Amino acid sequence: MHPLQQLMNPSSIAIFGASNNPMKMGSIQLANILETGYEGRVYPIHRSEETVMGIPAYRSIAEVGEPVDVVQLVLPTEVVPEILEECGKAGVRRAIVISGGFKEVPGDVGVERERQLEEVAARYGIRFLGPNCVGIMNSLCSLNTTTIIEPPMGGSIAFASQSGAYTAMVNPYLRAQGIRMCQTLSVGNEADMDLTDCLDYLRDVDEVKAVGLYVETIRRPREFIAAARETARVKPVVAIYVGGTEAGSRSALSHTGAISGPDELYDGLFHQAGVIRAEDLDHMFDLLWVLSMQPLPAGRRMAVITNSGGPGSSLAYHLEKAGMVAPPFSPQLREKLDAATGPLTYTGNPIDLTFETNIFIFKQLLELVYESGEVDGAFLYGIFGAPDFMVNLKKRLPQLQAMEESWDQGYQAFLAELAEIPRAHAGPLVVMSFLGKGSSSINTLIENGVAVYPSAVRSARAMRSLLDYDRIRHNLVSGGEKTL
Amino acid sequence: MHPLQQLMNPSSIAIFGASNNPMKMGSIQLANILETGYEGRVYPIHRSEETVMGIPAYRSIAEVGEPVDVVQLVLPTEVVPEILEECGKAGVRRAIVISGGFKEVPGDVGVERERQLEEVAARYGIRFLGPNCVGIMNSLCSLNTTTIIEPPMGGSIAFASQSGAYTAMVNPYLRAQGIRMCQTLSVGNEADMDLTDCLDYLRDVDEVKAVGLYVETIRRPREFIAAARETARVKPVVAIYVGGTEAGSRSALSHTGAISGPDELYDGLFHQAGVIRAEDLDHMFDLLWVLSMQPLPAGRRMAVITNSGGPGSSLAYHLEKAGMVAPPFSPQLREKLDAATGPLTYTGNPIDLTFETNIFIFKQLLELVYESGEVDGAFLYGIFGAPDFMVNLKKRLPQLQAMEESWDQGYQAFLAELAEIPRAHAGPLVVMSFLGKGSSSINTLIENGVAVYPSAVRSARAMRSLLDYDRIRHNLVSGGEKTL
Repeated sequence: MHPLQQLMNPSSIAIFGASNNPMKMGSIQLANILETGYEGRVYPIHRSEETVMGIPAYRSIAEVGEPVDVVQLVLPTEVVPEILEECGKAGVRRAIVISGGFKEVPGDVGVERERQLEEVAARYGIRFLGPNCVGIMNSLCSLNTTTIIEPPMGGSIAFASQSGAYTAMVNPYLRAQGIRMCQTLSVGNEADMDLTDCLDYLRDVDEVKAVGLYVETIRRPREFIAAARETARVKPVVAIYVGGTEAGSRSALSHTGAISGPDELYDGLFHQAGVIRAEDLDHMFDLLWVLSMQPLPAGRRMAVITNSGGPGSSLAYHLEKAGMVAPPFSPQLREKLDAATGPLTYTGNPIDLTFETNIFIFKQLLELVYESGEVDGAFLYGIFGAPDFMVNLKKRLPQLQAMEESWDQGYQAFLAELAEIPRAHAGPLVVMSFLGKGSSSINTLIENGVAVYPSAVRSARAMRSLLDYDRIRHNLVSGGEKTL
Repeated sequence: MHPLQQLMNPSSIAIFGASNNPMKMGSIQLANILETGYEGRVYPIHRSEETVMGIPAYRSIAEVGEPVDVVQLVLPTEVVPEILEECGKAGVRRAIVISGGFKEVPGDVGVERERQLEEVAARYGIRFLGPNCVGIMNSLCSLNTTTIIEPPMGGSIAFASQSGAYTAMVNPYLRAQGIRMCQTLSVGNEADMDLTDCLDYLRDVDEVKAVGLYVETIRRPREFIAAARETARVKPVVAIYVGGTEAGSRSALSHTGAISGPDELYDGLFHQAGVIRAEDLDHMFDLLWVLSMQPLPAGRRMAVITNSGGPGSSLAYHLEKAGMVAPPFSPQLREKLDAATGPLTYTGNPIDLTFETNIFIFKQLLELVYESGEVDGAFLYGIFGAPDFMVNLKKRLPQLQAMEESWDQGYQAFLAELAEIPRAHAGPLVVMSFLGKGSSSINTLIENGVAVYPSAVRSARAMRSLLDYDRIRHNLVSGGEKTL
């Protein structure tokens, strides 16, 4: 069993540094552990307080008197090695060291402190994350040890990161998109466990369908490549790397003590490792989202179905720019599409429904293009929030209210069915819409496994990543060289 | 006075095609005109209804009996020329033709209909937008003639588009970002007025500080270039073009009857015209947002101030990738920065505040870097939503409530002051944050003219557009060839 298995799924957790002083980072983290639904035992360790936030506190780890699976340390740097030693003596074997002031600070003192930490851990067989990290989140046991509230728990994306901020502060952005994460691991300075360990662990977590990495340096390139290749055989790995410029490299050094290398070197490393490189964090989550939910396309031929010319033209343009094609449909297919649609519909590829207001037709069109065998995947842009149009109408025509409610019910059921079509036909679907998660229609699509992007270029890059991963997996499994 | 001046600012508007049937596009548009705050006179024209949505309807335009500045036609294609003629006879000189079925449909009949439309308009001196468009929005007179509710009115961005969907359906996306538009013009098939006319009009609207264009074709390249160059002397113009691939071009033809050209040709055309080319709609609005609000930088040296290493490294990396630099600060400046910050702060460039929790320090640091003369602009990433941390804490430590409220007031005032620094120092500021518009802190920054992006790459590209526009304007005004 990988040491991260216990660290990420503890039956009990003790936290050092939490108190009744709300301005302490440890207090915020304890509040989050207590309020996120974690059902394990929680032990605040504090030298003087009898209770912390209403639960019993202990003067030391020894006083707890029961086995503790994981300790989280949020303490002044100087005392961290000594406290870790106390934990080791008490039988603790997994730790999360939040405290900073180690290798990432200039000068020898930080390096020496980190060495002490490693030495204590080795002596007691303690495996740990950090120092200089923000904690972990695991939606599978409702555990959030970070300072950030309300992680977007669920889904099947895991994220391991050399930036703690990125694993936790990104939450509001992800919530707004409708993207959820099931596990996050902030690795900090990686004094003990690193991104390679995270890959070894996450590979075998069945609930995780796609893995994201934020990289400032790879400390064990050979092991990383081996671990990533093994992982990419079973699930996609997407990474971002920002050490490859002068200032990026200088910043990484001061951040986690990382020695970074040129961009091209990391491009090569990721390529060899079967890792898809994303441009930035937002792009990485765009890709992880679709990769964690949609089937892989058999080829690069794409259908575009819209009810608006601009989005249709934009999708056609950007899918081609991203290395896919939107082939004109055959006369046989167009005949079928024409029969299903109104006179102002253009049934080439893109299909543009223009003034067609029967939105339910989308499902039929999608089935027709998949069944034709002429495409390997599809993009959809539509007026998914049709009830939104009615907001002002209802003020002027009150009789609409009842009509809208019955219509909306049928509409949500229709969208849920629509979302099943890609899996039934083993062809991926990507939806473009300007309606955000605030729209019940978009929520229905997302809840049923469809990724929704607010632009053509983001939609096209998402679909492209499915093709990229299909090629990577094929080559890793067969040893061949499948190209696009 | 440009004909669009009256069309965009009418004292009265008549609408054909609105009724008490809520499933009609014209009904939705009328409801939006009535509910958006427009104070001009509104006349529904309907053959049989006495009132439409509670206001008096007229059997024909002649029956109105008062001058009508603008008519909007949402009628079956066949009757459009005839109704336009009635309008011409009644003295109407500005029209918006929503109806489709003209040049954009395959075959000769659509072309012939569009010719009829042009002929009628020419006969009566009617200048019009469309056909095959979605209407206009002008926040300066609270007019929204499109089908889409709640446009994000305000700000100083104008958007003229060959895709109607893009001008209106994009609203929920823009609202979620906090981006507002003051005018949108859907030009449809451009039978009469085109994007070049929009530039000629928008150039002189003082409230408009930046102009966006969605382009599938440029019908009058010579005039477009001249109009764009004149406009870019006084305000930035950003365009997207999606006709440059096989499927993109095929789609554009079916959409607005546009004959598109290769990407490279349009690259050259935009370059000659002083137009910044954006990749897609989301990117275009990212650029328009900052261009409409922030001062232009004198050079490409940038400061990065963060309290998190990952965003700091990412900003440093992406600003360099985008052609800017993050120079290391001088010993003199670092001494001042060190004096202002705590021991775990790294005061190189990026400045990383790490565990520093005194957020108010941001303002002092920003002033110090601007005053040093060592940079031309700054990026900021920070925990702007600090009160969010307290959500779970408050459940456990109720005494926090009062403390938070007084703190938050001071914090919003601080952010408003922070937002003034760029203008005071004539150096632009771009903020990166994962907190969306839902955060009061981010709202305060946005309301005070700061653009906020949820990723490093989007922040860097936004800043870069300010440099691009500075160079474009300089070259247009001086005739020189200033490069980055």
